[in-house]
Amino acid sequence: MTKPDKRVGKVDREILNLKDISEIEKRLKPLTEEEISMRNGQSFTIDNSLVGVEKRLEYLGNKKIYFEYLNGKIRIESSETFKGNIENFIGMAQIPVGLAGPLWINGKNANGEFYVPLATTEGALIASYNRGMRAIKMSYGVSTLCLSEGVQRSPFFKFENIGTVGLFITWVYEHTEIFHELVAKSSRFAKLIEITTKVEGNSVILTFEYTTGDAAGQNMVTICTDRICKYILSHFSIKPVEWYIESNYSGDKKATALSFSNVRGKKVTSEVVIPKTVVERVLQSTPEKMARYCRASTLAVAQSGAIGIQGHIANGLTALFIACGQDVACISESSVGITRMEVTEQGDLYTAVTLPSLIVGTVGGGTGLPTQRECLEMLNCFGTGKATKFAEICCAVALAGELSIVAAMSVDHFTRAHKKLGR
Amino acid sequence: MTKPDKRVGKVDREILNLKDISEIEKRLKPLTEEEISMRNGQSFTIDNSLVGVEKRLEYLGNKKIYFEYLNGKIRIESSETFKGNIENFIGMAQIPVGLAGPLWINGKNANGEFYVPLATTEGALIASYNRGMRAIKMSYGVSTLCLSEGVQRSPFFKFENIGTVGLFITWVYEHTEIFHELVAKSSRFAKLIEITTKVEGNSVILTFEYTTGDAAGQNMVTICTDRICKYILSHFSIKPVEWYIESNYSGDKKATALSFSNVRGKKVTSEVVIPKTVVERVLQSTPEKMARYCRASTLAVAQSGAIGIQGHIANGLTALFIACGQDVACISESSVGITRMEVTEQGDLYTAVTLPSLIVGTVGGGTGLPTQRECLEMLNCFGTGKATKFAEICCAVALAGELSIVAAMSVDHFTRAHKKLGR
Amino acid sequence: MTKPDKRVGKVDREILNLKDISEIEKRLKPLTEEEISMRNGQSFTIDNSLVGVEKRLEYLGNKKIYFEYLNGKIRIESSETFKGNIENFIGMAQIPVGLAGPLWINGKNANGEFYVPLATTEGALIASYNRGMRAIKMSYGVSTLCLSEGVQRSPFFKFENIGTVGLFITWVYEHTEIFHELVAKSSRFAKLIEITTKVEGNSVILTFEYTTGDAAGQNMVTICTDRICKYILSHFSIKPVEWYIESNYSGDKKATALSFSNVRGKKVTSEVVIPKTVVERVLQSTPEKMARYCRASTLAVAQSGAIGIQGHIANGLTALFIACGQDVACISESSVGITRMEVTEQGDLYTAVTLPSLIVGTVGGGTGLPTQRECLEMLNCFGTGKATKFAEICCAVALAGELSIVAAMSVDHFTRAHKKLGR
Amino acid sequence: MTKPDKRVGKVDREILNLKDISEIEKRLKPLTEEEISMRNGQSFTIDNSLVGVEKRLEYLGNKKIYFEYLNGKIRIESSETFKGNIENFIGMAQIPVGLAGPLWINGKNANGEFYVPLATTEGALIASYNRGMRAIKMSYGVSTLCLSEGVQRSPFFKFENIGTVGLFITWVYEHTEIFHELVAKSSRFAKLIEITTKVEGNSVILTFEYTTGDAAGQNMVTICTDRICKYILSHFSIKPVEWYIESNYSGDKKATALSFSNVRGKKVTSEVVIPKTVVERVLQSTPEKMARYCRASTLAVAQSGAIGIQGHIANGLTALFIACGQDVACISESSVGITRMEVTEQGDLYTAVTLPSLIVGTVGGGTGLPTQRECLEMLNCFGTGKATKFAEICCAVALAGELSIVAAMSVDHFTRAHKKLGR
Repeated sequence: MTKPDKRVGKVDREILNLKDISEIEKRLKPLTEEEISMRNGQSFTIDNSLVGVEKRLEYLGNKKIYFEYLNGKIRIESSETFKGNIENFIGMAQIPVGLAGPLWINGKNANGEFYVPLATTEGALIASYNRGMRAIKMSYGVSTLCLSEGVQRSPFFKFENIGTVGLFITWVYEHTEIFHELVAKSSRFAKLIEITTKVEGNSVILTFEYTTGDAAGQNMVTICTDRICKYILSHFSIKPVEWYIESNYSGDKKATALSFSNVRGKKVTSEVVIPKTVVERVLQSTPEKMARYCRASTLAVAQSGAIGIQGHIANGLTALFIACGQDVACISESSVGITRMEVTEQGDLYTAVTLPSLIVGTVGGGTGLPTQRECLEMLNCFGTGKATKFAEICCAVALAGELSIVAAMSVDHFTRAHKKLGR
Repeated sequence: MTKPDKRVGKVDREILNLKDISEIEKRLKPLTEEEISMRNGQSFTIDNSLVGVEKRLEYLGNKKIYFEYLNGKIRIESSETFKGNIENFIGMAQIPVGLAGPLWINGKNANGEFYVPLATTEGALIASYNRGMRAIKMSYGVSTLCLSEGVQRSPFFKFENIGTVGLFITWVYEHTEIFHELVAKSSRFAKLIEITTKVEGNSVILTFEYTTGDAAGQNMVTICTDRICKYILSHFSIKPVEWYIESNYSGDKKATALSFSNVRGKKVTSEVVIPKTVVERVLQSTPEKMARYCRASTLAVAQSGAIGIQGHIANGLTALFIACGQDVACISESSVGITRMEVTEQGDLYTAVTLPSLIVGTVGGGTGLPTQRECLEMLNCFGTGKATKFAEICCAVALAGELSIVAAMSVDHFTRAHKKLGR
Repeated sequence: MTKPDKRVGKVDREILNLKDISEIEKRLKPLTEEEISMRNGQSFTIDNSLVGVEKRLEYLGNKKIYFEYLNGKIRIESSETFKGNIENFIGMAQIPVGLAGPLWINGKNANGEFYVPLATTEGALIASYNRGMRAIKMSYGVSTLCLSEGVQRSPFFKFENIGTVGLFITWVYEHTEIFHELVAKSSRFAKLIEITTKVEGNSVILTFEYTTGDAAGQNMVTICTDRICKYILSHFSIKPVEWYIESNYSGDKKATALSFSNVRGKKVTSEVVIPKTVVERVLQSTPEKMARYCRASTLAVAQSGAIGIQGHIANGLTALFIACGQDVACISESSVGITRMEVTEQGDLYTAVTLPSLIVGTVGGGTGLPTQRECLEMLNCFGTGKATKFAEICCAVALAGELSIVAAMSVDHFTRAHKKLGR
Repeated sequence: MTKPDKRVGKVDREILNLKDISEIEKRLKPLTEEEISMRNGQSFTIDNSLVGVEKRLEYLGNKKIYFEYLNGKIRIESSETFKGNIENFIGMAQIPVGLAGPLWINGKNANGEFYVPLATTEGALIASYNRGMRAIKMSYGVSTLCLSEGVQRSPFFKFENIGTVGLFITWVYEHTEIFHELVAKSSRFAKLIEITTKVEGNSVILTFEYTTGDAAGQNMVTICTDRICKYILSHFSIKPVEWYIESNYSGDKKATALSFSNVRGKKVTSEVVIPKTVVERVLQSTPEKMARYCRASTLAVAQSGAIGIQGHIANGLTALFIACGQDVACISESSVGITRMEVTEQGDLYTAVTLPSLIVGTVGGGTGLPTQRECLEMLNCFGTGKATKFAEICCAVALAGELSIVAAMSVDHFTRAHKKLGR
């Protein structure tokens, strides 16, 4: 077994996905004229020309995207399908899904143009995100990069006194090799990548951090950590006074400063430069006005004691999570992020959105349910090998939404949009 | 127009709903033996006896709860239904709904036994919440109280210098009467209840706080605040250098320390005393163990830099929000709360859950969509006059979930449950 | 007794000191040419010409500022002087004091040029603050405004159940008149200005907020709140299960999001526009570079999960607090603030510093001790009627320090300065 | 050069000082009867018998603790002494110092009984801390353990786009060996122990974490990091668009969630079990009442959005910092901590205090100034090899203060004490 110890602290955590540098360069470098014209030729923005559901489905059909469940062609019959997803089943909640895009992404893992299904009941939401995607398209795409991964479980141990805690964590440190083996036996996908300790008096929180393949992974890390803890309990010579599999330190289903400054799930960053003319034409604002709003808003958010500095990332992300069978309760941590806008030297608008605690999966959870699977397939994100790709799409969607709302706020169009499209 | 000014600061904000004291006493006092036996006679816990969808629907039918859309009897046909809820409609995401309950609530606004529809794809979630509800039932119900209400918009104004800001907020203060009139003209439901200022150098954030009737109200407060701002802009003699309808200080779609310590949407608190025997029998733990876990967990959450101190409120709340047509993105702020458990002098388990920033509505938004309306009707929470009732149900559901997870954590049943019921 | 109830929430809290508008205009408007030349004639920057302690004392003597204790002319003899300040006295800690300034302030309460005594052992600190003051001087002064005041005590009450809490806060609300009377009987200076409630299950935190005259006021508000609580305990019909005079919610000696977004002690804001040429000449940077650093730094601070967004306000404030007999432990909350820098349309540097939780006093505490009194007198801030003035000076000092460090950071002079002047 | 890479993440960071396990066992195990009686024989509590300054100095003299500057025997003459500590020197601020103790510590680094000099102007502070120390003495000492160390500098780099950031951090990772060499050349004491990256769009914060020997170390890490950055700038092929030596992410002079959950300076934990009888006799409360207050207070502090969960650690720590020549501005981060109290199975009071971001030094800064050195010598903490010892004393002092204030709060003696001893 290889020990994951050839590192100076966490320096390599954020370059987990940067190993193949030439790959990065290729992916993230500006497109050639040819590539651009090729893409432009084959697509157009949705909201201008696709009137009516049938038209939209036909259009998607041309892209080889078909549905059977989402549009009600096939009725979801048996509750057996949901075994493992629900108890006491009584029926199906139905949430309207709208289409946004195409969203042009030049990511390390997500690459190309994506039609994004968003399930929501909030009027104006899809129109707003779609507008952001149009601006991105005319700017030849948003760059995205999944920087690092890690899902945590944080068991808690309390001993007689501080001295025993000292002995305990020394012992833990000496047995990490075995923990790796236990993890390998418990899951095909989970990999233990870091153990940290948090001592407080006679108690200690051990945080076990894993990568979880393409699953969101909360159950997987519970099972692996449980196995490690059981080993600890039966092999460490001193019995803890108290112990719990999860101390609530891990950040599960919560916005925490810890997950914000480290990672939880996937950490993804994304950026785009929107040319001044596109800002003016599509977003109906100017780079200066948007950057200025962003600056004022940053201080206002900070004054509210928020975790993260962003606008309304939760809106689009929630809609995408519902459509794509994600654990929607994880919106609590996943929607935390940073939005930054600046005017470039050329007078264009630089925008970056970073999501440090994005909990997503493309296998397990609700991903295999009928409409959820169709939505994931629409993004070519169903199944193994797709989780980092899906994470990058999430981040790009968030960026599109931030562009649009900041533009609206910066020129006082926000209220107007809600009056026109809202309930 | 009555000025809402007969107050010493905010003392009355938390007693908005406490005006009729005799009412409170009646609602919140312990039930009589007779009332208890009456309720017990007529209900039983779901998971023991209701095997199969049909049985469950039949059971609900006996309670006069019927569906047509949720169980697929009627197909949702026209996308016209969703006008104002979605753009670029392409189909319906379908999320399985399970039934939890009955949840026995002795609230100020919610009173009686409730069958709770939860839309989720996370296995074990409903079983867990249901277990908590069973413990509550055997303890004769959870008390709930909607304490205070307020939805904010926080426009931003920047002037030449601090001196002008001083003149500005003086002027604003002198014109509050007019603002109330403008609000009355803009909305039948919105009521302006407070204006606060946050000066920073030559800029100021004005926060307008409203009650919004039975709507979640974010659009309503936008429209009202926009009208006030337009009045300000055209009547205050000095033009601001910058202004925005929303500075991002209001806490919309974010977990913020501000909303946590004040209110956003509804602030609801709830409590129950679970007798020792019920803890042992239903929750398979002891009051001591649960209180001890809760104490360790409180410090662990605090160490993670979370906003709020709670376990997994987001889980049940998200499922209820999806089922009932709420703005699910508001889970970001709504799932922030406080969970407290203590052993009483009698050796029973006191548990309180408080949600200070619960954004919910029973009119507008997604509440009128077919399955969403059915779910709200199941709780007798559809339409006007129901928002505070629904808020109290949300808080009681959250409490049920906290009971169950804390019990599981305290005796190491958490992993087992996820292995058995999870994906 | 006048009830402080003619208000819509807190709108008037931030204009407490703005009552006389013409006064503000006069104070905060730009100086005339004449005023400027008058001031310039009479002062010069310290560090250029005042070599040696004797020269500096002579210079101060010309300004009618004399010492006897600070410079060791008179030895502090008797420990009797400190009765009420210390127990188990064994001697005097001696901290070197350096002079910074003159600091030119055009404040509502502080007005003119101030020579600022800073007690520190950190090399380069005074040089840095002094540099900021020089830039301010050449920009004709920093505007300051004490916006609002409030010192809190937050007693905690727990009752049998939520219903009793409801009755309790209703009762409290009905007896606020009496509380005002009790405060008037307990202190000549304290004025009760707001009562807020924070209900959580069967417990409630009542926050009593006071103005405290010219004292920092923590003891004063303890005594007044104690009297109110004793009244409550003997007059409210239901005895609380638990109660404490201070729940630790008030923010005493802590950085809290609550004090940051409300007020604790004094809330002061300040601003200055530094002309481009002054930035270049004195601060050796440019407005663009400083604003750019400030922007990057704002996001970095937010990512660290700090309360407030600022650079090193604690440095100068601590030095001023030690010199001037303030409660230095209050640096925890007092050093929280917001620093904002922007390039104006004219290409100059706008800078604002806001301190929302500045605990200061000019009577009581350590203000009357020999060297401490001399330092306060140097600022003409000893005794009654001076607290808001001193608060404005604190904020202006903080601003001077922020200017200097941001300048140093923006052009990579930070390390150099520490190498040259540090230990 | 040895690479510090034999680790799985940070597991060994908290056991840096636990290497020699037998050592720990010896240090932290309960004292023998003999050791206890030996210690008890030779000391007694200050406040009972030492009336008057002369008596106290005589008593300290018996302990071989002498002063010359603190008690004014020798006048501090030349400002030359402070070169490197101050600019524009004009005199000495004089703060009264009181004696608390003896504080009985069974620490890994601090061991024995300590007489603690506290410089303050706040009446009742020393009496309160002294009371806590008495309770500790009668409980045979507080255990302390310096768990981990690390002082950070966090330079910021911005490049053209995300792709370049990817190349950059890959390059940084490949050159860590050289960085270690540069650090070795720049400082005899600094050791680089970890590099972490924080990518946000086209920018990255690199955090360099060092141990700094016995110095507080902020200047040392600036100089080392500057040297590394200069190397990076001249060797990495792509020039950054912006770069700064410190982004303000490091937590210098700020309370941050990051430093709270990691480490800044020293992380120290401490604990004591106070027998029920000692709680009753010395602290005039009961273990139950104190634990109950602590529980209520924990939730109240969390509701205020504080960083950390503690009472008034800033009070004693500030007084100790002023007396001992520490960088008092670092109280901002140093006073953040966790206080936990619980009733043991035997009915005694378990108390733990943890300080995760304690910035202290026993060389450099103000440690060598006359009275400051005397105070450090009083604790046998002056000079090299003493920093972790001093850190443990700081934590034990904090614990003593928490014991006393929690006791006072729990039985309503807080106001009384302030009335009797305060100003």
